[in-house]
Amino acid sequence: MAVREKTIGVLGGTGAQGKGLAIRWARAGLKVVIGSRSAERAQQAAEEIAGVAGGDVTGQDNAGAAAAADIVLLALPWDGHAETLTSLRAELAGKIVIDCVNPLGFDKQGPYALPVPEGSAAQQAEQLLPDSRVTAAFHHVSAVTLADLSVDHVDLDVLVLGDDREATDVVRELADVIPGVRGVYGGRLRNAHQVEAFTANLIAVNRRYKAHAGLRITDI
Amino acid sequence: MAVREKTIGVLGGTGAQGKGLAIRWARAGLKVVIGSRSAERAQQAAEEIAGVAGGDVTGQDNAGAAAAADIVLLALPWDGHAETLTSLRAELAGKIVIDCVNPLGFDKQGPYALPVPEGSAAQQAEQLLPDSRVTAAFHHVSAVTLADLSVDHVDLDVLVLGDDREATDVVRELADVIPGVRGVYGGRLRNAHQVEAFTANLIAVNRRYKAHAGLRITDI
Repeated sequence: MAVREKTIGVLGGTGAQGKGLAIRWARAGLKVVIGSRSAERAQQAAEEIAGVAGGDVTGQDNAGAAAAADIVLLALPWDGHAETLTSLRAELAGKIVIDCVNPLGFDKQGPYALPVPEGSAAQQAEQLLPDSRVTAAFHHVSAVTLADLSVDHVDLDVLVLGDDREATDVVRELADVIPGVRGVYGGRLRNAHQVEAFTANLIAVNRRYKAHAGLRITDI
Repeated sequence: MAVREKTIGVLGGTGAQGKGLAIRWARAGLKVVIGSRSAERAQQAAEEIAGVAGGDVTGQDNAGAAAAADIVLLALPWDGHAETLTSLRAELAGKIVIDCVNPLGFDKQGPYALPVPEGSAAQQAEQLLPDSRVTAAFHHVSAVTLADLSVDHVDLDVLVLGDDREATDVVRELADVIPGVRGVYGGRLRNAHQVEAFTANLIAVNRRYKAHAGLRITDI
C-alpha cells in the first residue's frame, strides 16, 4: 500500500492532536479529510489546516470523513470514544483504524491514567469495530511541535501497536512521512494500555523540564 | 547527598538486572552490597561482579544487605516481591528504596503486563514500606548491555518516579554515574504502572528488531 496515495480521515480533527497530525500529512502531500461532530467546524478546521500546510484538506462530519477515508485516525476525546465508535462501525468496516487516544485524568497532583474496562482505548476500539483493522499509534506526539512547520525535523519515534502486521506496517509508513519521525513496531494491541498511559509521564516530564518531550527507542 | 560515597544495596543482585547495575556502580567506584535469599549465592555473585568491575563488592543475605546499605535497589522477582519486602521493613526504614521490578507475564503471544492490586510494584513497595522513601527507576535497562563493560556509553534515559523530590534527585544521580545514562524525572509514583508495563513493549521491540532497546526522552 503506497500510503502517500491514500486519503487519511482524522476524526476529532478539530482538536490539537488531530490537527497537528493533519497539518503534517497535508504538508507531505496526503489527502486529508477532517471529521468532527459538526461538519461546519470540520470544514473550518480543514480551511485552517490547508492555510498552514497547503494540500488537499476537506472537512465533513465524523461519519462522512470515515466513509471518505482509506485510513482513519481516531483523535477523539476519551469521553464519548465508545459512543462515537459504536455509531461508525459501518463506515469504518474494512479500514485500517488508528487509535491515538490517551485516557487520562487530571487532579491537583497532575495527570494520571484512567482505568479502562477493555484494557485500553485501543482495545475498546477493537471490540467496538470488529470489522476494522485496529492499530494504536501517535500517542506521544506534541501537538505544538507538529503544528509549527518551522520545526522541520520532529524528534520522535511513534510506537505502532497491533496484531495485524500489514496494518502496523502501513501505520509505520504514515509516521515516516513526517520529517524526523520514525514509526517503530511497539507490540501487540494488548500492550497498548501502558503506551497510552505513558502520556501522563510525558506530561510530568514537560512540566518539570519545560519541554515538549517525546520518545526515541535506542539500539534500533 | 554525594551518591558516590554511599553504599548501594542490590537485593536480588544475583539476577541479571541487579547484577548488570551492580557491575556499573562498582565500576564507578560506589560500594556495593549484593543481597540474595542465600548469603552464599550473594557472595558468589559479589565475587563475580568484583572480578568483572573491580571495586568494593560484598554479598550478604537480603536482610544483611538491606541493613548495610544507604540506598537499596529492589531487583527482586515479582513472584515473592511482597513477602520479601514485608520481611525487610525494619532494615529498609529511613532509606531511599528503588523498585525496578517489572510485573510481567509471558505466553505464546509474548510478554504482557500483569495486573497489580496496588497499581504497580512500586506502589506495592510504598504500601509495605511506609518508613522508607520509595522511588521507581531502572526498569528498562538492558542487563546484557550493562554487563558488557566494553560498551562504554550506555544509550539510555532512566525514568525516575517518586513523590519525594530529594529521593528522586538522588536516584537520578545514581543513574548519571553510569556512562551515557541520564536520570530523568518521570512523574509521581502513581504513574509507575505504565513504566513497569512498558518493559513488555520493549521486549516486543527487541524481538522484532533483534535489539537491546532502551528509551531516550527528547527535547530535554
